[in-house]
Amino acid sequence: METITAEYIVSAESAEIDRVAREIAFEQTVEVPEALVTSEAILRDVVGQVVAIQPISDDEFSFRVRIEFNADLANAQISQLLNLLFGNISIKNNIKLVDVALPADFLRHFHGPNFGVDGVRQLCGVFGRPLLSTALKPRGSTHEELARIAYQFAIGGGDIIKDDHNLVDSCLDEFKARVSRCQKAVQRANQETGRSTLYFPYVLGPQDQLQAYIDFVLSIGIQGVLLSPFLIGLDTVRFLAETYPLVIMTHPTFAGTFFHDPAHGMAPGLMLGKLVRLIGGDISVFPNYGGRFSFRREDCHNIQRQLQNDFGHLARSLPAPAGGMRFENLPQMAEQYGPDAVFLIGGALLSDSSDLTRSTRKFLEAIRAAFPQHRDENANANWHSACELPAGPTAEAVLNHLPFRDDFSWVGRAVSEYKGSQVLPFQGVKRHELIGQHGERTRFDLRYFEIGPNGYSSLEKHVHTHAIICIRGKGVLQINDEIIELKPFDIAYVPPLAVHQLRNNEQEPFGFFCIVDHDRDRPMKP
Amino acid sequence: METITAEYIVSAESAEIDRVAREIAFEQTVEVPEALVTSEAILRDVVGQVVAIQPISDDEFSFRVRIEFNADLANAQISQLLNLLFGNISIKNNIKLVDVALPADFLRHFHGPNFGVDGVRQLCGVFGRPLLSTALKPRGSTHEELARIAYQFAIGGGDIIKDDHNLVDSCLDEFKARVSRCQKAVQRANQETGRSTLYFPYVLGPQDQLQAYIDFVLSIGIQGVLLSPFLIGLDTVRFLAETYPLVIMTHPTFAGTFFHDPAHGMAPGLMLGKLVRLIGGDISVFPNYGGRFSFRREDCHNIQRQLQNDFGHLARSLPAPAGGMRFENLPQMAEQYGPDAVFLIGGALLSDSSDLTRSTRKFLEAIRAAFPQHRDENANANWHSACELPAGPTAEAVLNHLPFRDDFSWVGRAVSEYKGSQVLPFQGVKRHELIGQHGERTRFDLRYFEIGPNGYSSLEKHVHTHAIICIRGKGVLQINDEIIELKPFDIAYVPPLAVHQLRNNEQEPFGFFCIVDHDRDRPMKP
Repeated sequence: METITAEYIVSAESAEIDRVAREIAFEQTVEVPEALVTSEAILRDVVGQVVAIQPISDDEFSFRVRIEFNADLANAQISQLLNLLFGNISIKNNIKLVDVALPADFLRHFHGPNFGVDGVRQLCGVFGRPLLSTALKPRGSTHEELARIAYQFAIGGGDIIKDDHNLVDSCLDEFKARVSRCQKAVQRANQETGRSTLYFPYVLGPQDQLQAYIDFVLSIGIQGVLLSPFLIGLDTVRFLAETYPLVIMTHPTFAGTFFHDPAHGMAPGLMLGKLVRLIGGDISVFPNYGGRFSFRREDCHNIQRQLQNDFGHLARSLPAPAGGMRFENLPQMAEQYGPDAVFLIGGALLSDSSDLTRSTRKFLEAIRAAFPQHRDENANANWHSACELPAGPTAEAVLNHLPFRDDFSWVGRAVSEYKGSQVLPFQGVKRHELIGQHGERTRFDLRYFEIGPNGYSSLEKHVHTHAIICIRGKGVLQINDEIIELKPFDIAYVPPLAVHQLRNNEQEPFGFFCIVDHDRDRPMKP
Repeated sequence: METITAEYIVSAESAEIDRVAREIAFEQTVEVPEALVTSEAILRDVVGQVVAIQPISDDEFSFRVRIEFNADLANAQISQLLNLLFGNISIKNNIKLVDVALPADFLRHFHGPNFGVDGVRQLCGVFGRPLLSTALKPRGSTHEELARIAYQFAIGGGDIIKDDHNLVDSCLDEFKARVSRCQKAVQRANQETGRSTLYFPYVLGPQDQLQAYIDFVLSIGIQGVLLSPFLIGLDTVRFLAETYPLVIMTHPTFAGTFFHDPAHGMAPGLMLGKLVRLIGGDISVFPNYGGRFSFRREDCHNIQRQLQNDFGHLARSLPAPAGGMRFENLPQMAEQYGPDAVFLIGGALLSDSSDLTRSTRKFLEAIRAAFPQHRDENANANWHSACELPAGPTAEAVLNHLPFRDDFSWVGRAVSEYKGSQVLPFQGVKRHELIGQHGERTRFDLRYFEIGPNGYSSLEKHVHTHAIICIRGKGVLQINDEIIELKPFDIAYVPPLAVHQLRNNEQEPFGFFCIVDHDRDRPMKP
């Protein structure tokens, strides 16, 4: 039996602690008084088992209690995990859930962060230093004013612009108008700087419209969103992260009652660290110590630890300390968080001077100075992978019939052939965009690629997947360390973030269909 | 400008209270320091306005603070309402949100409880006394054991059986197997007793499967579900309640950190009363005072008040005190809650004797004794409305073509004609089930009704809607107090819970198509 081990700090008299610990184990599993549970099987397989009670040295009324639960009781669901660990006892008192150990069998049901530390770095093209982020606000500003803030921050070299979590629009159409405007401002700045500043809008729509919001976000080339898991539900965020190839930044709004009482609730490191990472958060926003919220340095350290320690197959995430951060704190923060963090600076940046671009440069210089090994790259070059050759020169029409020609081409569709890029080199690759890029209302694109003798596609990875069907010649597909030989009508699947490359070692062309999501993330270096 | 007025209890020194109150107003709206907000329009229309600060008489460090927010800032969404009222300040301390006044313009976006007190009573056929409910548990029991508990409770006369909120199945198929079995057991008991005990399964699946769970529940004739809004998200519950014609019973699991600290969080009356009602909860489960949780009598009173006071157009909901309730408490509970409540009794009922049927009868007798005016009816009779004539004797086939005959009938479909029922009388009504009841994979049913001279359909209401298209003769549709005259090709829409009747005052037949959801709730008396 696989087990989930929860660690609670329980305040009780020492004469009572055994009973209190057992009550938690019963309340959270069978929810009936101990005397009513007569089945051996239920006592063994369902009721939680108290495996350790240790006094805490400096407090005679506090105990560290470990309870093991049968992992099956969590049903591989985040909502049920929370129900099991802290559902009914949340309504009690003097019980703090500080951590939980999750077995591999449970973790394998979770996808975790789509991008993680390395993926977000590649999107931004920033290595070896914390990323600088700011928030678009205040609510009530015009779209033009918000777009100007976004533009000035991006021109100043800022890395990530997110919406304030109060920036909620009256309807989807207003969201589209505002978000398009801000995204265009950032894209314009990126063209001028050659950098790759990212813009993450805040998505808080009605439950039944969240996917429409995100479909739009993807359709205009946005690569991440800000979500509030404690408002919309942790499993909603898990679902959106699994479904869409987006960077997920999470906001802690409405989670505070779990934290404020040291004797009851759930620890920040568990909620804003481990659980956020479990549901797919790439970047977790939380109140920095010393700001206008009352998080302690130790809480912030625990959040970072839970975001970045070993955790099954899940990628590492970025802590984003925020909330009243000041210029003078940057050296201290650099020391506390090291390079793998996002410094989210709102008010201090806006109030530093009347010139946001200049202020952004000043903050960025301070960050760079603290990390002399930092390196910025042009992340836009990543688009030039074999998979993502720039579109051909002429727009083609929606066609219901694409007759096949004997030379492996199709009536109505042209072929594209380009030189390889520096960042993701490839060679001898031709692409036919068959369905999806001509106005068809599909959620996928069907392409035909052909790789000439000794040619190869880019060695790369991305969140979106490939379905590959070989139809001509022979070729090799490498997926991580696996080598797959393909002959006509062999089919292959490339899972998310798998490093992969297709190669033709023969003297005949190697041709295959490749089906991908229509809305997808950029390829990254392995 | 419509406003939302939030009422907080704030703990602070009297010299500080003005500043603290203003900080809340800024934090929750613009989230920038006061000095940075220079726009007159933003100061007027976006920043919250502190409208009252009153010392609380018996505590010199506590103040009642009222803040008015522009109602537009809540965007007619429950998630954004929570974000606005308590998002970031949840992470502060010494702020208790105790109530909020919501304007009519905000409330009209919310549907509220589908059934409410009156609707649930009609489903059960129980009037003038509290309903008796129990929970199926413990987890780990076989399907057979759970079904036996359900059967014995229903035979004993219990009104509502809900799943325990730990009863989560490994997958949808297991849920189907378990829930079918329990529902069949309750249906069998109902046939024997002539009563209408309801069974509400607990729905906690992955976000992307919740609708599949509920589709199944509806397909086997179940009329309500138990949901946990604080695990799956309040707006998820709102969406499910608006989408499906179900009784929504809510469980408070995972909400407790809002309550345990009297100085910080949100008040139980607001969360488990007003907000649960806003998102469509018909029955709100909460810990009764004096049980194994620490709710005070006053908290329970406030929950009931918020579930049942005037609240725009929203129906009244039922409080369901639970958690360690005992037989001896019944008289006290009868006095506290009056007749409009659900008494949810788990452990005490299971441990009262080894014969659950007998124990249920005993508890029920105690409840009935406290409410001598109570009345039980056979709620199953409600099915016999004109809309829901029992199906014809022969099963008909899926047909792609139903040729029309000049006598207003269709090749391949028979006509049904029945005598009216006692409970929902009707007269002279014929029904043709055209599409939906023969195995078609539609989510709706298309029927043709014909009402003879001086005939009428039942005067009734239900959560599901009607679309009506007149094609023969003339007739009258009454919707609440509105009279609509229908002639051929006139179309009418009957909204949820509108009291309605169709009448033929002419000497020629009055015929119309009526389109309804395939899965729908039972008609009820007006």
